[in-house]
This record gives sequence, C-alpha cells and structure tokens, in this order.
Amino acid sequence: VHAQDERYELSDDVAGTARQLAETALESDLAYEIVESLTTEVGPRLAGTPQEARAREWGVETLRELGFENVRVEEFALDLWTRGETIYEDVAIVSPYPQPVYATSLGGAGSTPEAGLEAEIVFFDSYDDLLTFDDASDALEGKLVYVNDRMVASRTGEGYGWANRKRRSGWVEAENRGAVGVIVRSVGTSSHRFAHTGMMGFPDERMPEIPVVAVSAPDADQIERIHESGEPIVMSLNTNAGWRGEVVSGNVIGEIPGREAPEEIVVIGGHLDSWDLGTGALDDGAGVAITMAAAKLIGDLDQHPRRTIRVVLFGAEEVGLVGARAYAAAREEDGTLDNHVIGSESDFGAREIWRFDSNVGEHALPVMDAMARELAFLGILRGDNEGGGGPDMIPLQYAGVPMARLAQNGEDYFNYHHTPDDTLDKIDEDELAQNVAAWAMFTYMAAELPVDFRPQDDEGTSEDEAN
Amino acid sequence: VHAQDERYELSDDVAGTARQLAETALESDLAYEIVESLTTEVGPRLAGTPQEARAREWGVETLRELGFENVRVEEFALDLWTRGETIYEDVAIVSPYPQPVYATSLGGAGSTPEAGLEAEIVFFDSYDDLLTFDDASDALEGKLVYVNDRMVASRTGEGYGWANRKRRSGWVEAENRGAVGVIVRSVGTSSHRFAHTGMMGFPDERMPEIPVVAVSAPDADQIERIHESGEPIVMSLNTNAGWRGEVVSGNVIGEIPGREAPEEIVVIGGHLDSWDLGTGALDDGAGVAITMAAAKLIGDLDQHPRRTIRVVLFGAEEVGLVGARAYAAAREEDGTLDNHVIGSESDFGAREIWRFDSNVGEHALPVMDAMARELAFLGILRGDNEGGGGPDMIPLQYAGVPMARLAQNGEDYFNYHHTPDDTLDKIDEDELAQNVAAWAMFTYMAAELPVDFRPQDDEGTSEDEAN
Ligand SMILES: [Zn+2]
Ligand SMILES: [Zn+2]
Ligand SMILES: [Zn+2]
Ligand SMILES: [Zn+2]
Repeated sequence: VHAQDERYELSDDVAGTARQLAETALESDLAYEIVESLTTEVGPRLAGTPQEARAREWGVETLRELGFENVRVEEFALDLWTRGETIYEDVAIVSPYPQPVYATSLGGAGSTPEAGLEAEIVFFDSYDDLLTFDDASDALEGKLVYVNDRMVASRTGEGYGWANRKRRSGWVEAENRGAVGVIVRSVGTSSHRFAHTGMMGFPDERMPEIPVVAVSAPDADQIERIHESGEPIVMSLNTNAGWRGEVVSGNVIGEIPGREAPEEIVVIGGHLDSWDLGTGALDDGAGVAITMAAAKLIGDLDQHPRRTIRVVLFGAEEVGLVGARAYAAAREEDGTLDNHVIGSESDFGAREIWRFDSNVGEHALPVMDAMARELAFLGILRGDNEGGGGPDMIPLQYAGVPMARLAQNGEDYFNYHHTPDDTLDKIDEDELAQNVAAWAMFTYMAAELPVDFRPQDDEGTSEDEAN
Repeated sequence: VHAQDERYELSDDVAGTARQLAETALESDLAYEIVESLTTEVGPRLAGTPQEARAREWGVETLRELGFENVRVEEFALDLWTRGETIYEDVAIVSPYPQPVYATSLGGAGSTPEAGLEAEIVFFDSYDDLLTFDDASDALEGKLVYVNDRMVASRTGEGYGWANRKRRSGWVEAENRGAVGVIVRSVGTSSHRFAHTGMMGFPDERMPEIPVVAVSAPDADQIERIHESGEPIVMSLNTNAGWRGEVVSGNVIGEIPGREAPEEIVVIGGHLDSWDLGTGALDDGAGVAITMAAAKLIGDLDQHPRRTIRVVLFGAEEVGLVGARAYAAAREEDGTLDNHVIGSESDFGAREIWRFDSNVGEHALPVMDAMARELAFLGILRGDNEGGGGPDMIPLQYAGVPMARLAQNGEDYFNYHHTPDDTLDKIDEDELAQNVAAWAMFTYMAAELPVDFRPQDDEGTSEDEAN
C-alpha cells in the first residue's frame, strides 16, 4: 500500500494535550489583547519607517513579557518608499464634470511634477485590453491609462491574484507606451470610498517614473459612467510618492525552546509591517497576535514540546517579502535552514479557519490527516497537499521547507485589506480565538510528533502556487 | 361625532388613478436616472460654490426636459463657508502613539494657525459632561476638548438629534472655557474610516474662532482606548476652514399647473445642495429625484390634477435652511403663502417608505386616513398627526402650511450621511421606485381632492418637533 493509505494514530497524550490547548485558547482573549496593543500603541507601520521600528520594539517587549526565549531582532537593509507628506493625495476629475476622487498611490509609484499633471484618460475595461493594445500606436503618449477590472470576492481569496495583475504590471505597459500616469480601479472588494494600496511589481528591478494611483470603487463607477456617456475625461493628479534611500528594517524572533530536539524548528509567525493607510489590524496584526498567542499557550504547558517553536514577526513583507528573504538568507548562512521541519504564516485576516492544507512529503500525509481529524472539532476541513505556507514562507518553501496552512475565510478580507478601513473594530474576538485554538493545536502537534515532514528521496513535492 | 371618527371615501376615479400612478412608478427607472445624472454630472455641490451653481443649471435643464412649466431660479445671498483647498485635513495623534487620524472640519468651523496647532486633549465621555464642567476652572485653557458620545441607529433616525448636540453646540462650551479647538466622535453610525461633517449651530450669530473637527468611529475608538490606558494624549490639527464672504445661491422651481385651481399649490421637493465629501446621492439627490419623478408621472396623466404641483429644489439646505427661508420669505412678499395647501420634502435617503405622517387640521384627518389606506399596498403604515414635512418645510410649517411626511426607513441612513460614502451605489433601485410610487400617490391625491388641510378656526395644530 501507498503511504497515504495508511492511518496514523495520535497517542492519547498528544491528542489530549492538543484538545486542552484548544479549549484554553477558545476561552482566552490574549490574541485580541496583543492585536489591540499593536494597532493602538504602534498603529500604522509602513516598512522602513520609524513606526515599523517602534513595532520591532513593541515585538521584543511583548515577546519577553509573554515568556519567549532568545528574543532578538535581525536587521536588514531596505529601500524606503513613501507616499509623501500625508496619507492623502490630490486626484480629481477636471472635465467634463469637475469633482474630487478618492485615490492613493500604489507602492513604488513615481510622483507627478511638483505642480501636478492633467491629462486625458484612455479607458481600458481590463488589463488584458491594455496588454494587447497596439504597441505601434502612439495613442497613449501623454495620456493617463485607466484600467477598470473588478475583483471577485471569494472564501479563498483567489480573485486577488487575477485582479492584482493591473496593480503589479499595469505601469510597465503604460510607461512603455508613453503614458504619463496610470489610474486603476482599486483591487479589493470594498464598496466604500477607500482606495486599495499595495506594492507594484518591478520586472528586472526597473522602477516606474510615472505616478500610479488606485481609485475607490464608487469613484471608479463614476469614471466608468462618464466614460460610457462618450465624453472624454480629463483628470488631474498631484502626488509626491517616491523612493527615499536605504534604511533599516528587521525581523523580530522569539522561541519556545524544544524539550528533546531544540535544534529542530517549527517556524510560525506573521508580518509586523503594515500599509500606512490603516492600522494593520487584519493585515497582519491578527497574524502576529494569533501565532504569538498560540505559541505562548504551548509555552505554558507543563513541558515544552520536543521541538523548538520559533515565532518570527517579519519586517517589510508588504514591500516585497524583504524580511522573509533576509530570514531565509540568514539561515542559509548560519547553516540552520535544514533544521526547519515545517513552517506556516498567518496572513489572511482574522475570520474563522475553515481548511487545513499542507505541502509535505507523501509519507507524512497520514500524519497531516491525523492532525486534521483533531482540528475538525473547530469546524476545519482537510484541504489538499498543494498549498503554500503564506507569503513570508515562500523563500523557505523554495529552499525545501515543508509547509502547512490554516486557511481563513477570506470572503470579506478584501473589503478592508490595504485600505484606511483595516482597523481593530473589524476583528471578531470569537473568530480570533478559534484561530488561536487551531494554531495552538497544529503547532503543538508539529513540534511534538517525531515526524520528518520533508519528501523522502523517492517522493515528489509540489512547488506550484505560493502567493 | 368628532371629525376624525368619520370615514372619508375616495372616488373610484381618484383611487384608480392613484393606484395606476403607483404601478407606473414601480416599473419606472426615471428617479434612478435623475439621481444618477445629478450625482455624476454635478457630483458634490456645497452650498454657494460653483458646483451648486452647476446643480441649478442642471435642475433647470432637467425640469424643462421633463415637461415642467414655469421653470425658474430664485436666487438669494449666502455667506460661503468652505473647508479650504482640499477635502482632506491634517489631524494626528502626536503622543503617546503618533499616527494619523481621519477627520473633517464641521461646517462653520474656524481654522488653526497657519502652522497648525498641537495641544493636549481633555476627554469628555459625553456632551452632558462638558455642559456641566466647572466653569470657574481653567482646565480647558489652551486644551483641545474631545467629546465622545455615540449615536444610536434607528428606523426613525431619532438618535440623530441627541447625538448632534455636541456638533451644534460643543464649540460654544469649549471656546467659552478657553479651549483652542474641539474634536468630536463623528455623529452618524458608520463603522468605516469616515468622519461625518455637518453644520454647527451659531447662537446669537456668533461664529467660532477655533477649529472644530469630527473623527471617524475607528479613530474615536483609538482615542478612547489610549485615554483609558491613562496616558495623556496630545493631538495636532492643521485646518484651513473658514468663511469666504457673500455669494449667490438659489432655489430651482418647476410646476405641473393645476387644471381647476392653479393658484392652489401642493409643494414638494428636496434640496439641491450637498456636503462636499460625498456626491450627495442619499442626501439629497434621492429626494430631488423622487419628487421630480413623482410630479413628472402625474404631469403625464391625461389631465392634470385640480391644483398645481410645485417642485422646489432648495439651495443651501445643509448650511442652515437658507433656501427654505428665502422661499418662505419670497412667498410672504408675493402674498402667495396662503396658497400652499400642503407641503412635504423628501430628505432622508432612499430606503423604503414605511410610514405616512401628517400635520393637518383635525377635520382633514379622515382624508389623510383615506390616503393611507391607498398607500398601504406599498407596505406603508399610517403614522400620527404630529409630524413635520422635512427640513426645508420648517419655515412654511411655521407660517401655517399643513404638512405630510412619507417616512423612509432610516436604519442605515447615518452610515453614509455627510461622509465621503454618500454615493450612488448606496441606492437600491427597487426601494427608490417604491418611494416614487408613494410620492406620486400622495401628491396626486393632495392635488386632486378638494380638501382644505388647514386647521379650521376651532381646531388646534401641533407645532412641535420639526427637525
Ligand atoms: Zn499581509
Ligand atoms: Zn498586505
Ligand atoms: Zn438633507
Ligand atoms: Zn444633510
């Protein structure tokens, strides 16, 4: 028989302790207190800013207070991008119907000339239309490119990647064709007057010279209506976004040392930085809080699990997984990469977890299935073995570290994500506690069970999709 | 027997025509087209600005296109107040936890010194606490007064008046005690990161010297959390709000002339101006559209009703019912005030109408009850006889004009009202059509039935509550 047909049984001890951890977590408000503290006492914490440095101080203090060991910061260099003097940007329809537009620069965007710019828009229904727009024509020369794709909301959040193409690469297509700026309908599913920010892509490390902004859905609807009336639309932008030079960022690390195999590491965490518009409650204060609280509850057990649980609060995730890459590079350098037995990040908000995915060697599937049977009482389904472990796990996954994912319900995540509306009040305390319960169970079992999650020599591994 | 015990029966003709108007209205998208046009082609239209002047042009054109007669503008003078150069204002927590705050000046507020100001806040849980704060103390000298009352949402919207006290009068209490500015938790019930604007009150025509801003609910929660931690809070403001001198505003008027008694007027309408943050879809593009569409459907009947239906699109409502007062004064002057047989304004959004209130002489109550029986098929209850006719009807009501009100469901009105989020997408087309149906029925019956709605000499009238 094949490995995955075997049934793996947890000992009563392990299953009982996992269940007890979950019961404790469901009664605890520790994660809520952590995310309340981070979002209130630090607030927005854009990568590379003094606010992110305050978040690292907060992380060190909080991990120590919670009894973590080996608490430390690993610094790394970062190119700083900021929006300008304020979080507001001056964008308007000039004609035919003058009115202000709620907009925000995308991460990495250039700025307008100091006096701003005014130009006619060329309206593209979709990013695909822009991609296939006649290269030889000079129809975009001196114009503002407008891209109107709508994101579809879903439990899995899978509409995000598709909708994000215009955010990541729209500027390249526009700049190559002589456009003076790009305006996109916000990625995200908010029906409110908030523009969704987020980092653009920089193929071959090329950076945009032109301004690139997103407009809120109601503003995008307005532009679409005017466009459909057949009137040419002139818009004005005045932005001061840009790169500000090299600064310091860092990852914050704390551990629950293992009882028998402290050199073996189960790595979990979230990212400490946030976008500047909200207070980063869902993205990713929640992930920081869930994983810290879960590890702390495990640390409170009568005895630590066999392996070390390492919580990493990654810096500079939003601006290109800079902290995650620095972490993996540092482990490559200190030779401890292979000590990472499995990894997972929480970075998809705070709604209930509904699915448990993995990416492990086939021989370990019965163990993951056994974990899933324990998680079932929290309303969690067993997913597949094709998953990633969250954005900051990508460099580790590429280096061969097995992954798990506790997938949250994402159906309203993109109503708040990367907007001013990502604030503490959007977190439901009970759903947050369910998250901690699931994370405590998974993390404990992964650290306690003497299982190698890596593919064996004769097994394959799935390397696709890691977002 | 007393008059209200009698039963008034509509003729089959009148009842049948009213029902036919409703059926037509329920199938029509005219009101949606009107509010779409106003909010798209004019957009925000703060009283006294060039945008409000464009709205008047739009009103004249649209009334003419729809076949209204005697279309005209009645201009009046207005003191202009504006926010400053942009719709954004620079407000922040400086210490203990520096972060930006989403805020907006209240109408009529003063500005900060050019470089802005920074001061410690004195936190008041409620406006009542501020009112009773020791006058003799100098504890507010040089401080920012913060007032934290929360509005309660309701179908009737009755929580608004109570919550508004801090907006209207908070500045007087603060300025009298030497405060350098006022910050209030937004009136309104939005849970999003929008601050609610609106005009302050000016007792004895006194105007504030100090800046007065509202902060969004999530920001107010943040301030409250920090306050509860016991830390003193320093905030910074940099606003440029102020009065800009005398300008022109105006009311736009159009009529469906009466068949038999054209000098008798049923006056309906909405207000044309809006706050500058949104596009004034719910407040009050909807009211403009509902009443214009209802009157237009009546104008399309084979014969006009007996009396004239006058649609008034009031200017400068938001800044103190300036257009409504000008309208009443002009009618006082031209001697046609007594020709107004009944009045009603739609100014509470676009959700379904659920109640029909009146304020008429007792002998006319059986007629209102008969109208209510016709309206019942739209899901509308008969209310009481204590109501007002909407804000712009207040001067007419004070001058003795009878009133009716088609009360909308207001349970989410204050989620959007006076914020950037008051945009077209918040209007449900079916609910809007139900409004038009009710308005067409009521307006037609009031114009057709040969009833004097005024109190007779021996009757009283209720003059209380008109908001
Ligand atoms: Zn994230
Ligand atoms: Zn993010
Ligand atoms: Zn209004
Ligand atoms: Zn209003």
